[in-house]
Amino acid sequence: MSESLDIKALVFDVFGTVVDWRSSVAREAEAFLSLRGHKLDWFAFADRWREGYQPAMAPVREGKRPWVSFEVLHEEILVEMLAELGVEAITAADLKELNQAWRRLDLWPDVPGGLSRLRQVGPVVALSNGGIAQMIALARWGGFQWDTILGAQVSKTYKPDSKIYLDGAAYLDLRPDQVMMVAAHPWDLEAAKACGLRTAYVHRPTEYGTEKPKKRPDKGTFDIEVDSFEELADRLGA
Amino acid sequence: MSESLDIKALVFDVFGTVVDWRSSVAREAEAFLSLRGHKLDWFAFADRWREGYQPAMAPVREGKRPWVSFEVLHEEILVEMLAELGVEAITAADLKELNQAWRRLDLWPDVPGGLSRLRQVGPVVALSNGGIAQMIALARWGGFQWDTILGAQVSKTYKPDSKIYLDGAAYLDLRPDQVMMVAAHPWDLEAAKACGLRTAYVHRPTEYGTEKPKKRPDKGTFDIEVDSFEELADRLGA
Repeated sequence: MSESLDIKALVFDVFGTVVDWRSSVAREAEAFLSLRGHKLDWFAFADRWREGYQPAMAPVREGKRPWVSFEVLHEEILVEMLAELGVEAITAADLKELNQAWRRLDLWPDVPGGLSRLRQVGPVVALSNGGIAQMIALARWGGFQWDTILGAQVSKTYKPDSKIYLDGAAYLDLRPDQVMMVAAHPWDLEAAKACGLRTAYVHRPTEYGTEKPKKRPDKGTFDIEVDSFEELADRLGA
Repeated sequence: MSESLDIKALVFDVFGTVVDWRSSVAREAEAFLSLRGHKLDWFAFADRWREGYQPAMAPVREGKRPWVSFEVLHEEILVEMLAELGVEAITAADLKELNQAWRRLDLWPDVPGGLSRLRQVGPVVALSNGGIAQMIALARWGGFQWDTILGAQVSKTYKPDSKIYLDGAAYLDLRPDQVMMVAAHPWDLEAAKACGLRTAYVHRPTEYGTEKPKKRPDKGTFDIEVDSFEELADRLGA
């Protein structure tokens, strides 16, 4: 299959694809809130936070709300959650600090080795709904570097808006079919595919926990389907 | 002096500051055009190309021309130059290839070591009038990586428009005074300083050739004045 592809750059989803947000957010939330005397189901806390993300982005993507960054949306969700959970007396500074849990997310173990091999194919670029400062912080936390960071904050909308994928190719001075979108989520890849990008699905079965394993998409839905960045590098001959 | 600074990120001019555009463009132009039977003064060729750059950007910066990328402007200048020099029969593909000379510019020798030390201070970010694909290509040519690339193509204007410097800080989620602009050109640093950024002047005496050495700005004009990225790293305690 890789023979028919002429990939000049790879663009990456980040949350769930590059980083294991769930266990990292659970760890960060526990470290922060248990010190302040709170006892919660930390995985449920991470899940609830993440669930707020799609409905929060929708009004921005649909033009009903002016551009606001992912971290602002995330802080709004956090405020709601804490109220629901009866967690009180959180200062504005604490809110901001807890929100930055999403800047300290650990990489899936295959990522550093795989990414450095994939850089031989071409530039590796973040194409996330997260913001630029957040993407830089995550890369530094994980000890790797992108060639550059594009995505929501540059395009002023959220995936799966086609603008993000088309801007991604245009900023890289490439045709969409020269760019491969790498993601662990079919909705993201379907949108990229509709814009003419090539697609690589990376299976992250435990993204939502071992008790809720993810199903693989049907074979042949995307150009490449793999279990790790290392396997993607193999498939692209890197 | 560094004691009073609280720098969280460094943003860099690229042409002249990070790369020695003049000798690289002269080399690339010679390699390309001498093969096609042309004999020119290659340094004068590089200088003429670079001189076209300020007047070409002005209409875009002033809002009199819609956004066009640096590489489009550079190709327009090249077409004019070749006509003036009587170089004929250049195909569109050749023009595009020769224009890409600006993607193969060598680093000043202190850059790789200095940049990797400066990354200990905070993210190192390109803030150039060059485009994103061009900045990625230059970094890959030079064997280093930015934390991300901002600048003209993201802000859709050209330096010294204040929007670029202010956008640079905002995308990094920092106040202007937490960001240090690093450049070899006083006009760039003066504009950054007017936006509240900190400034580091790097002296590149031979940017325009050994026969036209550059003058240093008056002492104290900028926060830091150094002769190399290594010295800048020393001054910032990296």
